[in-house]
Amino acid sequence: MRDVHIAPILIGVLLGIATAGVLRPREPNPTRELPAIRQVLDDQQAAWNRGDLAGFMVGYWNSDDLEFRSGATLTRGFAPTEARYRERYVEGGTEMGTLTFSEIEAELPAMNRAVVVGRWALKMKADAPHGWFTLQLRKFTDGWKIISDHTSSAEK
Amino acid sequence: MRDVHIAPILIGVLLGIATAGVLRPREPNPTRELPAIRQVLDDQQAAWNRGDLAGFMVGYWNSDDLEFRSGATLTRGFAPTEARYRERYVEGGTEMGTLTFSEIEAELPAMNRAVVVGRWALKMKADAPHGWFTLQLRKFTDGWKIISDHTSSAEK
Repeated sequence: MRDVHIAPILIGVLLGIATAGVLRPREPNPTRELPAIRQVLDDQQAAWNRGDLAGFMVGYWNSDDLEFRSGATLTRGFAPTEARYRERYVEGGTEMGTLTFSEIEAELPAMNRAVVVGRWALKMKADAPHGWFTLQLRKFTDGWKIISDHTSSAEK
Repeated sequence: MRDVHIAPILIGVLLGIATAGVLRPREPNPTRELPAIRQVLDDQQAAWNRGDLAGFMVGYWNSDDLEFRSGATLTRGFAPTEARYRERYVEGGTEMGTLTFSEIEAELPAMNRAVVVGRWALKMKADAPHGWFTLQLRKFTDGWKIISDHTSSAEK
């Protein structure tokens, strides 16, 4: 019977597992990532409520591929999305009002990918629009950003 | 110098990679899964258009945890979601009309998880409601099911 070399096989198994662990996608870390994602929304809410639309936009992916859906419309790209907000809430006698996010549920289906559902509500002088949002986020080198936003409003 | 046993180390490395591959979450297979997800939507559309609400509902997760968001409302659970459709489109002189899904974009962030965005449009005798949907799907033993539906409509 040939010599069976158990130790080198075991060393190899450990090396193989380590190699596979480096090469394969890793599991998301909810303890670290969920507070970071929540912070994106908290920062957006705070920026909106100090009238800082540019600060609010920091939560979005600065890309022509950003997608913003509302009602039956699609706005594609960071600049058009900012322009849409500006037209609706900043220019021409409109007001930004007070924004509140609530009932936020975030999930991490994979490393660097999140899906967030929640409620939004705006309190204005004469109106109180509100509804749901579904956000898709991706983690970039500069942090989590919304890459796709789908917003719905109460029907009037 | 001690004998270096390369062969058993290499065997071990391969065993380790294989073990890690079995134990870790695998990559989704878009070639197989995307047509299966598309079929869920095609089956829903076909069922709706033959007036088969129960058939349409087969695409949804039959669970009290199913989430259906529309406008500013949340309907939780399979039976309440079916009841909502029945009240709006089947009972009391309403009509189901002709449903079309289009501009469908599906993503597989992980094994057994999908996010689908698309347009819906209903053609009725006197009305043509339409808008966007964002669906979250999970793959169960009996196939892909919608676990969360967020729908928005054109504002009137």
